[in-house]
Amino acid sequence: MNQVEIQDNFFSRYKELIRTEMIPYQWSVLNDEIEINIERERNDDSIPNEKSHVIENFRIAAGRKKGNHYGWVFQDSDLYKWLEAAAYTLREKMDEKLKCLADDVVDLISDAQEEDGYLDTYFTIEEPDQKYKRLWESHELYCAGHFMEAAVAYYEAAGNKKVLETACKLADHIDSVFGDEEGKIHGYDGHEEVEIGLMRLYRLTQNVRYLKLAQYFLLVRGTECEAMNSKHLPLTYYQAHLPVLKQDTAEGHAVRLVYLCTAMADAAGETGDEKLLLASRRLWRSIVTRRMYITGGIGSTVSGEAFTLDYDLPNDTMYCETCASVGLVFFAYRMLMSEEKGEYGDVMERALYNTVLGGVALDGKHFFYVNPLEVVPGKSSKDPGKSHVKCVRPQWLGCACCPPNLARLLASVEQYVFVQKKDKLLVNLFVECKGSFEMEDGVLNIELKTGYPWEGCVEIKLNYSGTASVCLGIRVPSWSDTFDVELNQERAVFKEKHGFIYVNQVFSEDTIRLKLDMQAKRWYANPLVENDLGKFAVSRGPIVYCLEGADNGTNLHLLSLEKQEEFEYKFDEAKLGGVGVLTAWGWKTEPDSGAQWLYRKNTAAVKKTKTKIKWIPYYSWANRGENEMRVWVREENPC
Amino acid sequence: MNQVEIQDNFFSRYKELIRTEMIPYQWSVLNDEIEINIERERNDDSIPNEKSHVIENFRIAAGRKKGNHYGWVFQDSDLYKWLEAAAYTLREKMDEKLKCLADDVVDLISDAQEEDGYLDTYFTIEEPDQKYKRLWESHELYCAGHFMEAAVAYYEAAGNKKVLETACKLADHIDSVFGDEEGKIHGYDGHEEVEIGLMRLYRLTQNVRYLKLAQYFLLVRGTECEAMNSKHLPLTYYQAHLPVLKQDTAEGHAVRLVYLCTAMADAAGETGDEKLLLASRRLWRSIVTRRMYITGGIGSTVSGEAFTLDYDLPNDTMYCETCASVGLVFFAYRMLMSEEKGEYGDVMERALYNTVLGGVALDGKHFFYVNPLEVVPGKSSKDPGKSHVKCVRPQWLGCACCPPNLARLLASVEQYVFVQKKDKLLVNLFVECKGSFEMEDGVLNIELKTGYPWEGCVEIKLNYSGTASVCLGIRVPSWSDTFDVELNQERAVFKEKHGFIYVNQVFSEDTIRLKLDMQAKRWYANPLVENDLGKFAVSRGPIVYCLEGADNGTNLHLLSLEKQEEFEYKFDEAKLGGVGVLTAWGWKTEPDSGAQWLYRKNTAAVKKTKTKIKWIPYYSWANRGENEMRVWVREENPC
Repeated sequence: MNQVEIQDNFFSRYKELIRTEMIPYQWSVLNDEIEINIERERNDDSIPNEKSHVIENFRIAAGRKKGNHYGWVFQDSDLYKWLEAAAYTLREKMDEKLKCLADDVVDLISDAQEEDGYLDTYFTIEEPDQKYKRLWESHELYCAGHFMEAAVAYYEAAGNKKVLETACKLADHIDSVFGDEEGKIHGYDGHEEVEIGLMRLYRLTQNVRYLKLAQYFLLVRGTECEAMNSKHLPLTYYQAHLPVLKQDTAEGHAVRLVYLCTAMADAAGETGDEKLLLASRRLWRSIVTRRMYITGGIGSTVSGEAFTLDYDLPNDTMYCETCASVGLVFFAYRMLMSEEKGEYGDVMERALYNTVLGGVALDGKHFFYVNPLEVVPGKSSKDPGKSHVKCVRPQWLGCACCPPNLARLLASVEQYVFVQKKDKLLVNLFVECKGSFEMEDGVLNIELKTGYPWEGCVEIKLNYSGTASVCLGIRVPSWSDTFDVELNQERAVFKEKHGFIYVNQVFSEDTIRLKLDMQAKRWYANPLVENDLGKFAVSRGPIVYCLEGADNGTNLHLLSLEKQEEFEYKFDEAKLGGVGVLTAWGWKTEPDSGAQWLYRKNTAAVKKTKTKIKWIPYYSWANRGENEMRVWVREENPC
Repeated sequence: MNQVEIQDNFFSRYKELIRTEMIPYQWSVLNDEIEINIERERNDDSIPNEKSHVIENFRIAAGRKKGNHYGWVFQDSDLYKWLEAAAYTLREKMDEKLKCLADDVVDLISDAQEEDGYLDTYFTIEEPDQKYKRLWESHELYCAGHFMEAAVAYYEAAGNKKVLETACKLADHIDSVFGDEEGKIHGYDGHEEVEIGLMRLYRLTQNVRYLKLAQYFLLVRGTECEAMNSKHLPLTYYQAHLPVLKQDTAEGHAVRLVYLCTAMADAAGETGDEKLLLASRRLWRSIVTRRMYITGGIGSTVSGEAFTLDYDLPNDTMYCETCASVGLVFFAYRMLMSEEKGEYGDVMERALYNTVLGGVALDGKHFFYVNPLEVVPGKSSKDPGKSHVKCVRPQWLGCACCPPNLARLLASVEQYVFVQKKDKLLVNLFVECKGSFEMEDGVLNIELKTGYPWEGCVEIKLNYSGTASVCLGIRVPSWSDTFDVELNQERAVFKEKHGFIYVNQVFSEDTIRLKLDMQAKRWYANPLVENDLGKFAVSRGPIVYCLEGADNGTNLHLLSLEKQEEFEYKFDEAKLGGVGVLTAWGWKTEPDSGAQWLYRKNTAAVKKTKTKIKWIPYYSWANRGENEMRVWVREENPC
């Protein structure tokens, strides 16, 4: 079986944090073992904020305890995501104590499952007669999908057969209830996810009914059927306004949309369904060319946590949910499996290194749900249009989807490094690791050595046991204006094709060295993005940078940079867990707070002073208390 | 008695519109005589939206009909404001039919008044046992204040004694219930207004109890007393967080704050209370130097329709309620009565010619509640943070405070032209009119001739029956960089002092000609106003200009102007009821909507084309259907 093992300066820290901090911490939260301060993201009295109660709900549903369900209807998924993250952690490094805990969780879930395979603690405990009757809001299939994902991961990691049996029993039950056939429910969940779970279960079990059921859920969406009766939210919220094959623009709740797209791309890749692939590609283009932030964040408004309009990308009122960028990574990876285009890896990197990593504090114990590109603390507290924008990461969230979601992604980041296609292997992410892949006539061992994302050199060592030639594709990120390649220490010329270079040969003890362009780059938004016009953002490698008050004082909007000014880069071991810092000499327009004027007729009196401006990686902001932050910075003399 | 009669090209059109359109139209709305489409400003199910029911509530309270109260608790004030506007209209030109209607209204109000003087249809009909028990939200005293204002105006206009008796009976009743004395309610209304009404009633009747009661309500505010028990809103919302003498910054609901300030300045002027004057001045400075839009709009957020922070002036999510700018005119006028400073008139003009006039459509039958400085129609419908921002004026508003409020101001605009102080007369606004004032030893007849606000010449003809010298002060607006004065056709040199020039002499058939600088001016905001940095607004005379999509196409943010570019001015008789239009050659950054890129590393490819940009007066926007608008425009090479 293919294997990838990470030993990376950058990501190993996160993986260790997940193992030692996030998984135990999230466990104690889910199990109500510690007192925490749960942040309610809005003034909604319906959101529980004293405890999590997730595991307690399972105990009650399993008949081990008496009591009522407490919390959101979709909370079961928090435990499933935790289990999935734990699975990846165990796959990497077995830990008997954690495995026991996870085995117990499997037993608990299995006990909470009903005789016929139904599984959802809320409806089992509180409203058994309402099962599958409120699909637009019930999240029953959403939770089921998360359980299937967790089950596949945990089965693969720990060989626990019960978890797979429980998941299959649930999938079989759903298959018996939903479908085109007469007597079945013609419907689908308001929140996509079951489609992803079914695809994973199908790939593991090769049970074609799971694939067909996933296809059913994908294609019935947006068609007229009795199950989508919500009067409260527009159909776009659920991507239910049109059949998915007819959807051209990314609409509605951003997490839902990317989960839908992930499953569409997945099913298209698996079945070769051209129409589904084309539809996935249209939605991809809608997101990445018109509706995505430079940080890989998506969702321009808190209302419905949703997409809005093309080029409508406000930096201080947006949503940019961590989960949505996690989902964008999933979507990008599935697209890359179908189409060898570097842009999928580029966007995956953008989302992963910036918004996803920004979703968790350096301590691994505080989390953002909303990831702004511009924050002034006072405004968040005074302006209700910004009240969802936090300036520091809360300990936990009333709606706790994001912490375990980013945990399961970071815990399995090795899955996204390579893409194998028959006799071809693509190197997608640059993470120090060792991998071995079964190719058509042998095993390809591959080793990546790199100081990425701070350094641009990637050394790839290859060793192939077979005798046929193998094609190795290496992604060249689009931010890299130039690149150098050495093949066995000799400079080689490769032509980039759709963001990849290819080395096609019989490998045996070969070394490829890729050197990327690590100059800091200024980025400009399409002029149709009103909020970014006359401004630039700076990145270096895959990392998008930002200004923070802790380094630059207040009123960050007063800072500006001349067009020709260059950035100085320095890696600062001591800062923020070790980050590359960018500095440049810019201007600070002098505030005029003492002045008794608000509007005046000349600008001659406005003074600017030369000042050194410091940028830190976006993902590392908000680790030094409440302060201002901004990604887009004014450029003097914009053209 | 002093008299001013307007015959002005600019304002007479509005006054005629009020007489012929707004008053009859608003009457039929208040009386539920026509089918209208009432716009609900938010998704609040508690707002009635099918009918007004205002007069019906009075009929029920008066016992003439059976039924329930319907609508907001403060709706009585809509009728009072209508009566006040009708009074000003009648004062100018008697109309027997309207007078009959107004007399009937007075009878109806009088019948709705209870035996003890209490007057409020909601509590009389629905909750008599709750009278004065929910002062933070009941608006009982607020409505009372509006009735007192209307009563004074209608008594003065039509000599109707009943209206004055009813108002005095109400004031006496309130005086018997509220006050410092034991056994009385120690409290005040959540919405200031009764203080203004009492001051007016005092000035007419010279009953000192009304003055004292107004002072009581002013000074008890923000002190601990049992009457402000709301748990739902912060005390700043009601300006109840501190005693008014200790309030330094404009906080909370903007309309309330300026009504409070109006009464403070009024009482200070009447009594010479230095502390109250100083407090008024502090709040004035807080507004005009840190919390006011260039259009004279106030209230930076929809939440609580309130002030937020110094220099926090977002252009697309603000509130800028029409009523708040009406109140700012009142406040400015009261300050001007206390202090001869031109800035009061400057701000009054700013609010009046821009936000107040912008509150009503050119047809006099559609109204804005919220007055944005930047609108993109699609964003208002997609972004809930902007859903309060309408792109066209609705026919009526669920909360209908603004339409009759601006009607009563525009119907009485002559009151704000002059300020008399013993032997001194100040010319504050430039409106074509004739006035006569009883000075210390004679009558001063004054006539203003002007094409203002489009032309900057003001001819002032004076004729004095007395023999002593009279001091005439003429405001020189701060936007006028230069000014010329001719006294009886000879050029004269005057030194400006705090925004006024003074002619001190024995007048007899004298003519003063003032010529103001009518060049279009660019304005820049204090750099601390983040949203306006790198941008300018343009004004000509007192009129602030804006760009509208109807003239300039979509994506107005793509337009920019070089610093040195000059404006061309032309009065266009046929456009928007006759407006002065400004044009200049600027740039349009080419959109790039077909492009498949959202972010890129160089700006070289961004093209700009020279384009003629057209500005129209801000007040005249949104009269050509739904389209984009913006006040602040990017300046190329900002310094």
